[in-house]
Order: sequence, then structure tokens, then C-alpha cells
Amino acid sequence: MKTTVAIIGAGPSGLLLGQLLQRQGIDNVILERRSGDYVLSRIRAGVLEQGMVDLLREAGVSERMDAEGLPHDGFELAVNSRRIRVDLKGLTGGKSVMVYGQTEVTRDLMEAREASGGQTIYEADNVRLHHLESNRPHVTFEKNGETVRLDCDYVAGCDGYHGVSRQSIPANRIRTFEKVYPFGWLGLLADTPPVSNELIYAHHERGFALCSQRSATRSRYYVQVPLTEKVEDWSDERFWEELKRRIPDDAAAHLVTGPSLEKSIAPLRSFVTEPMQFGRLFLVGDAAHIVPPTGAKGLNLAASDVNSLYRLLAKVYQDGRTDLIPNYSRACLSRVWKSERFSWWMTSMLHRFEGQDEFEYRLRQAELDYHLESEAGLRVIAENYVGLPYASIE
Amino acid sequence: MKTTVAIIGAGPSGLLLGQLLQRQGIDNVILERRSGDYVLSRIRAGVLEQGMVDLLREAGVSERMDAEGLPHDGFELAVNSRRIRVDLKGLTGGKSVMVYGQTEVTRDLMEAREASGGQTIYEADNVRLHHLESNRPHVTFEKNGETVRLDCDYVAGCDGYHGVSRQSIPANRIRTFEKVYPFGWLGLLADTPPVSNELIYAHHERGFALCSQRSATRSRYYVQVPLTEKVEDWSDERFWEELKRRIPDDAAAHLVTGPSLEKSIAPLRSFVTEPMQFGRLFLVGDAAHIVPPTGAKGLNLAASDVNSLYRLLAKVYQDGRTDLIPNYSRACLSRVWKSERFSWWMTSMLHRFEGQDEFEYRLRQAELDYHLESEAGLRVIAENYVGLPYASIE
Repeated sequence: MKTTVAIIGAGPSGLLLGQLLQRQGIDNVILERRSGDYVLSRIRAGVLEQGMVDLLREAGVSERMDAEGLPHDGFELAVNSRRIRVDLKGLTGGKSVMVYGQTEVTRDLMEAREASGGQTIYEADNVRLHHLESNRPHVTFEKNGETVRLDCDYVAGCDGYHGVSRQSIPANRIRTFEKVYPFGWLGLLADTPPVSNELIYAHHERGFALCSQRSATRSRYYVQVPLTEKVEDWSDERFWEELKRRIPDDAAAHLVTGPSLEKSIAPLRSFVTEPMQFGRLFLVGDAAHIVPPTGAKGLNLAASDVNSLYRLLAKVYQDGRTDLIPNYSRACLSRVWKSERFSWWMTSMLHRFEGQDEFEYRLRQAELDYHLESEAGLRVIAENYVGLPYASIE
Repeated sequence: MKTTVAIIGAGPSGLLLGQLLQRQGIDNVILERRSGDYVLSRIRAGVLEQGMVDLLREAGVSERMDAEGLPHDGFELAVNSRRIRVDLKGLTGGKSVMVYGQTEVTRDLMEAREASGGQTIYEADNVRLHHLESNRPHVTFEKNGETVRLDCDYVAGCDGYHGVSRQSIPANRIRTFEKVYPFGWLGLLADTPPVSNELIYAHHERGFALCSQRSATRSRYYVQVPLTEKVEDWSDERFWEELKRRIPDDAAAHLVTGPSLEKSIAPLRSFVTEPMQFGRLFLVGDAAHIVPPTGAKGLNLAASDVNSLYRLLAKVYQDGRTDLIPNYSRACLSRVWKSERFSWWMTSMLHRFEGQDEFEYRLRQAELDYHLESEAGLRVIAENYVGLPYASIE
């Protein structure tokens, strides 16, 4: 087999990259270890930055998002008993975010790919990347028991933190940076109307809580839990009780509870790989970096990598600008680190850290108070939340 | 002896409080352990916030400052080879700072006190505070070998970190919060023209450096050094060499060196006492809190405490508002913690921390990059640097 760009991973970043390249006439094949149904069953993020919304429109896959997605012009921060609205639109000169589940984005992208005849090979086993530093890299994988070879010009590693792409880079050619947080998020998905029109991020002495949503009838709630907790020990009732204690009283009074569709505990991690390129392999999204979910940056950061790589490859194939290739990593990482910073900051501000130094705890309270009382401080939060500008590849 | 307010310490906060109270007809006596000459010999800060400038004007001691002080509408941040001007005036809607040495402020206040006939007792030994929780506190001290008793309504503890005031509060009635930094500042004062019209805060891989000034002909420079360094090991030549390496090349090229008038190493510390009141004792300035000097907040924070206490006592004696007394600590601490935050933040951003976790180092770089590239980020720096609004005592 032969293609121009081999894309490893059929999550939203691989699919979006494939779609954008296809529209520029750049041939690509997507290889995915799992089945399409499995990919669609993963419950993930739900808040899209303006830049990602624009990119989905550019990819021609925005019809359903534009019809069903919920534009959010603000969100709420609840600090103990105080509720402060972060007026995204007002503070950023008109920008906002779109609430539309990652699952829906993936579904739209899958359908668009099918319609355009793009090739996705699901259940591609034992994917291996070869000769990445040469001019003729290739990928091998097993399908129905047979080994297949896919020749290509470039490889896009969109296969997440555990994928083969980053692991294909020799250890001495890469640096990783990591921080693990001493707690996780217990999430619950339910077909109940959201407690509020906007998201509520709550800092409470019992721990952080988040009231999120996927649509007008589907809610997603989270509570901070120690990493030692087991999801089996959390009945729906216990979850709802704990959530009510952590969110403002008037919000708790309006909370509609119901049976969970899904419930799981996710650890929180910050992780960055440098550089994000090795020969003809480009790392995209979670393959290169992980953020804790506070701040809703994970999927959006993947989209901004996709944006850089797609524009880079368009210039390579349309204008012969192979000289731009070394810019990829720098362009991505400058924005990645700023998003890492914001995600770490939101996490540090809003969570409870057991055994934290008292001075640091007070400092953190002062940091939060300052940012919520100052218009400049609120603007810093708002402009990061809607997303910093995409980097230029030139 | 009898007075209304016994002020412990004749540094700038004690003198400023005394002057302001005097103008409201509130009698006070200042007790100082050292001589006046000793107090004047201490080399300290040189950047006054707008609020402190206004307070000195209100106290009627601004004539020389207004004539000789240098209004600064901005300062510079040099991060490795990049120079960014923080346009204080533009970013804060017209606010600025005044460069005028703490020594000069103290001298002006001493002269004003002498002119107004206010009583300052220098070389008052063995000061002790008594019955602070009663309605009739008193202070004792030794002068020329005799013990003197000073009866008063209130005691203002303006005697710094090592003073007797805070130590007079029982340990179980007070909480302290502290952070010590693993480095110090080596400072050099010289009668040379400043290297630049504005201050330069330099972050360099060899460590932090600051180009400050006291006047058009007197400069104050600092370099970050390990706490193990001894000032005897730093000849003037060695200091100038090290400074030149850390500041931008074009600044280094303009640096005029000369013999030092003073050279010393100061440790960096963050420290807060809660509450700032115990019975009839009010803690003011360094007696209650210390900030690292990055951000120039120490003297200014003392001035904002003086502002609160002076307005409080004016209301007590003019309107009988003793009900406001419990507000003092809360009013001060809200601003104190925000200044602690800013001072810690500036320190963390600009210094080199040996053995720092690599993830945190990158995060810190991203934090600095973000703030210097974003107008909202620069506004956060600027509005903190010129000083947050003074708290209301009501």
C-alpha cells in the first residue's frame, strides 16, 4: 500500500487531520488499533475553543455542531460560597466556546470520512513505524492475520499517550516533562438537564467539583477524589450527595439527579514531549502532551497541533516549502506550554491539596482572590479559556 | 508619661503614622531603640507606589519628594536576550511609581516631626508592652538608665520583624506563615548615573539581576547570589563583572561603574502574621509581614497598613467609631496577601532555582512568556507593580 501521509490513530485528531488533508488533495490512510465503535464509546471532553470550532468549519464537518452545539459566552467560578461569572465574550472582545461532546465530533468526522471515501483501517494490529529518519518511511501493521506494509512520505502520530508513535522515537532523541497530581476526577454522565446554563467550576474545602454538560438534556459532573478511591464504592446516590455538598446551595437546589450512563475515575497528569518531531514523524495531541482536564484544553490542544501540521503539509505539497518542516515542533510547543501552564494553574487554584504547606495555601487563595477581583486577572482567565491564538508555521 | 498612641519604632512607618495622626490632633510618642543616625544609615527600598506618594502628600511631607523624586512610568523586564517594557502608565490608565529612596523619606519625616514638635525618644532601651488586652495598656522602656512608663490608649507596633511588638503577642493567639528562599540579593550602592532611565529586572541563566536607582546620580544594583556567599568575597570589580553578564548587552555597554558606597547581602523571605491586631496593639509593616524585595512591595505595604490604621484611629477619635477596630486586621491582610502573592510571583519568575524540577522550570518559562506576550498578562504585572487599591476600613 502507498499513501502520502500515514495517520496513526482514528480519534478526533487523526480524523480531523485526515479530513483537512483530503480537502487539500493530500492523500492519507488512517490506521486504528481499535474498532470504530470502541473509539465512539470513549467519553471525553465537551468544550471546544473558538479556534477548534473554526477548524471544524474549515474541514466542512460543522453542520451538526452548528445546529446542535451550545455556544457558551461565559462560565462560573464558585469559590466557597462566592459565585463569579467569567464573561468570556465581554472579556475577550467577542470570543466564546462551544459545548459539543468529543464523541459527537468524532462521529461527525467518521461520517465525513466515509462520505469522502477516505480510507480508515480499524483493528490494525501491531502497528510499527520504520525508517522515520529516511526519505522513505513506512508503516507495517497486521490485519486479519496478515502483515501489511504502508509506504508514505510522512507519519502523523495521533495515537495518544499510550500509542506506538512516541515510543518509536529513540529515548536519547526526546525529552519528557511530567507532573502527576495526588488526586483524580470521578465523572458521572447522565441524561438529566444541566444544573445551570453555563459550566460551574467549584472550589470547596471538600475538594473540587465541576458541573459540565454535553447538551440541553445530557449532563457531565465531576468531583475530585483521592487516587485510592474505587469507582465501585461510589453509588449514584453517593456521587450526587457529594456533588451537592461542593456546589453553591442555590445550584444544589436546582440539581436534577438521575441514573448514571457512565461513571469512571481519571487520574490527572501534566506531560510534555520535546521535540514533537522525529525525522518524518510528527506527534499530534495526546501522543505528545497531556493536560489535566481543568481548563478543558486536551482536545483543543490536539486541534491546534492538527492546525499546524495541516497548514505545514499544505505548504509542503502546494508550494514545495519543505524548509518549514523544522518549524512544526517550535510552533506547537510554544502554545502547548502555555496551555500546560493554564491547565496546571486552574488545577492548582481549584483543587484541594492534602498536606499542602500553609503559606502556599494562603498564597493560592490570594492568587484566586486577586484574579477574580481584578478585571485584568479575569481577562487572563478568559483569554486562556477561549484559547490563545494558533501559532504560525512560518 | 501619657499619650494617646504609643508608636514603637521610628522607621518610615512609625514616623509616617505619627505625622498623619498629629495632623488629626491625635497625640503620639514614638519610641526607637536605635539612634536617629542609625535609622538614617539603613539602605532600603526606593520605589514608592502611587498610594504611598499620595499618603506622603496627605501627611504634608512631600515637598522634597515632589521636587527631587523621579516619576517612573514604566520598567523593563529582560528575559535572557529579550527586553520588554512594562508601560505602567499605559497599562493602568495613568498610574506610575516614584523613585525616591527610603532614606530620603525617613529624613523628610524626621524633619517634619521635629518641626511639628512631635516627640520621638531615640535609644529607648528594653521596650516592653503591658496589659494590651485591657482598656489601659502601657509601655515601659529604659532611657539613660531609668525606667520610664508611657500610658496610652493604643500601641502601634512599627518596629519591624525583629521588634518587640509581635513578640508581645502570646504564641497561641497568633499564626505565622513563612517561606524562605534558597538565595539572597547582593546589593551595591554607588554614586554613578543609572544605566537606564527606568529600572531593569533581568532574568538570566546565571541568576537574577536588578538595575535600580535612587536619583539621577545614585544607582543601586543587585545580583542574586547563593546564601553561602560572603560579601567580603565580592570586590566591586567582581560585582560589576557579574552584573554585566546578567543584563542585556546594550545595557551592559552603557553601564557606568564606580566605587561602592555600600555593599551587603540580604536573604529573601516571605512572612505573614495573622491577625495583625492583639487587644490594643496593632502591628504595622515589617512587624507583621515580610516580602522578598522583587516587586518593591515592602515599604509600600507598610504604608498601606499605616493608611488603614491612621484612618481607623481618626474615626475612633473624631466619630467614636470604636466598632471599626476589629476591621483593621482583615482590611490589611487582604491586601497583604495579594502583595505577598505578587512578590512571590515576581521572585519565582525571575530567579534561578537550583535543582528545580524540569517540568516546573518549563512551566515558569511559559508563565513568563504568556504574561509578557499578552496585554492582559502585562496589565496584571503593571497594576500590581503600581499598587492595588488601599482597603477601606469600614
